[in-house]
Amino acid sequence: MKRVGKNSILFDNVYVLETATSTGPREKKGPIGEYIDKDYENLNCLEKSWEKAECRLQKDVIEISLKKASLEEKDLDLIVSGDLNNQIVVSSFTAKDYDIPHIGIYGACTTSILSLIVGSNYIDTKTFNNVLCLTSSHYATSEKQFRFPTEYGGQKPDTTTTTVTGSGATIITNQKTTIKITKATIGKVIDAEYKDAQDLGKAMAPSAAVTLKQHLSDFNLPASYYDLILTGDLSLGGSKVFIDILKEWDIIIPNYNDCGLMIYDLNNQEVFSGGSGCGCAGVVVNSYIMALLRKKILKKVLVITTGALMNPISTAQKESIPGIAHAVAFEVVE
Amino acid sequence: MKRVGKNSILFDNVYVLETATSTGPREKKGPIGEYIDKDYENLNCLEKSWEKAECRLQKDVIEISLKKASLEEKDLDLIVSGDLNNQIVVSSFTAKDYDIPHIGIYGACTTSILSLIVGSNYIDTKTFNNVLCLTSSHYATSEKQFRFPTEYGGQKPDTTTTTVTGSGATIITNQKTTIKITKATIGKVIDAEYKDAQDLGKAMAPSAAVTLKQHLSDFNLPASYYDLILTGDLSLGGSKVFIDILKEWDIIIPNYNDCGLMIYDLNNQEVFSGGSGCGCAGVVVNSYIMALLRKKILKKVLVITTGALMNPISTAQKESIPGIAHAVAFEVVE
Repeated sequence: MKRVGKNSILFDNVYVLETATSTGPREKKGPIGEYIDKDYENLNCLEKSWEKAECRLQKDVIEISLKKASLEEKDLDLIVSGDLNNQIVVSSFTAKDYDIPHIGIYGACTTSILSLIVGSNYIDTKTFNNVLCLTSSHYATSEKQFRFPTEYGGQKPDTTTTTVTGSGATIITNQKTTIKITKATIGKVIDAEYKDAQDLGKAMAPSAAVTLKQHLSDFNLPASYYDLILTGDLSLGGSKVFIDILKEWDIIIPNYNDCGLMIYDLNNQEVFSGGSGCGCAGVVVNSYIMALLRKKILKKVLVITTGALMNPISTAQKESIPGIAHAVAFEVVE
Repeated sequence: MKRVGKNSILFDNVYVLETATSTGPREKKGPIGEYIDKDYENLNCLEKSWEKAECRLQKDVIEISLKKASLEEKDLDLIVSGDLNNQIVVSSFTAKDYDIPHIGIYGACTTSILSLIVGSNYIDTKTFNNVLCLTSSHYATSEKQFRFPTEYGGQKPDTTTTTVTGSGATIITNQKTTIKITKATIGKVIDAEYKDAQDLGKAMAPSAAVTLKQHLSDFNLPASYYDLILTGDLSLGGSKVFIDILKEWDIIIPNYNDCGLMIYDLNNQEVFSGGSGCGCAGVVVNSYIMALLRKKILKKVLVITTGALMNPISTAQKESIPGIAHAVAFEVVE
């Protein structure tokens, strides 16, 4: 691994071995449902609490990704994981059932890509052979914690996003596969003084734009280098702001999409402004995007996940909502 | 960097450039007060909310460590930080005021050492030159969030620990200094089925013992290799359990202490079972321990920070409190 430009890293030996995804019913019924490995008929996921349900989703993807890779638990050298729950209890409680070293991270909805950035260090240096990078979110754990318990039936504005119930895992390795993690850009915390906690996409859009600009500048690449530039969960409103900011900077991105707009059918599923949560990019990237890379329909994809840095106390204290965005490039190698 | 044994890493090029600490009044009045760089007369730290006060402590140590190292903000390539607040808002809100890439971590009270483990990857590989590893805790933000607002005056059992109000920063670099970070052991989440949230030291003790045993086994070292083995915040009860577990495993540690027992005078300060919180090890290690290493009074120190993995919801749901412990060795080099 070596530094490129100001905030970016070029990796030599980091490959995607296998990925897995597990979701609730709404995600399975969405446009990429057929690419999801496992799903549940309701949000309980056969468990007695929302938190246990989210743990189950994480355990599903650990088991499925291990099976796909023909690995056993003892073959995993490290789990890097995080989620949206206070003190990332879901990630910690999942990790307690595995005899594997654990690094906990918190990057709000950047977590899937942040876990790859942190995990890739151990793979690129050949310190470890197999690292599992993991994240999840759950509609009901998030609603309860950040908004109101779902039982209240509180009304929401159209700008609200819908937290994805799902988990995604990526096992990375230093043995060559067809999908290489080539580049990463570590984001900075960007405060655009935005304060509406019901419209987080717009709060995160500036950080996504800053990270993309930094990435292209660090590697001296045009946006067209990538077949697809994919943001995490900017949703309808945030994606528009993202594009508008880039236009002001004369950056045109011809092939752009947002995981929050891909995971649900916004016209026919009641999801307001789109999907969000750590599990949004975690599921979309580890299911549909990986399938397109494996089929070589896409060959160069830049994923920029975005996080809104707040909690209900900071909102009550009338603090603004800063954002952060981390980027990783996946490229098909022959 | 290379793997040693099962869960450990040997670093080649990671050195402590400078450290800094900032605290509230109780820590300054404690036995190691003279080693603390900056302190405040009350918990407000001249700010209008407890969260802003904790941010101020973090900003203090960034500024002081930069000044000690004769560096400017632009010389820092990365900040790795975390805290105990929900969604680590204090670390994020601090980072928004710096034009520096940020990796957020969550490891409960392991954070100071976890930040060094994550940050060291970038230093050892010479990807980055200077990384700032940072953590903090604050008595009033923690009491409000994990127990009750301090204004309630709730009574506590003697097993309770007192959350340290303080922040510690370590700037690590790949240019040789007298203090080298030589070894690290990444912990696993250990669930000893312990459930008393008013006695977290005991909940974390098994994880500290497991990590120490793994460390000594991975490097094939006797405990006496270290001048001092220091746990994070096991407090009175947890330290005793830690020693008892090690005795059962025939591991005798001749030079042992716990940051939670060092930061306060337990006989004369009303701190119940000792100090705790991310800031506990963050302050003790980055002030007193670094001073002893610089003076070569200590030459080989293993710090094992410990985290209790829970939140008030998991406690209300009658979940157990798993622990995790991460270790880093500091050694004086000529």
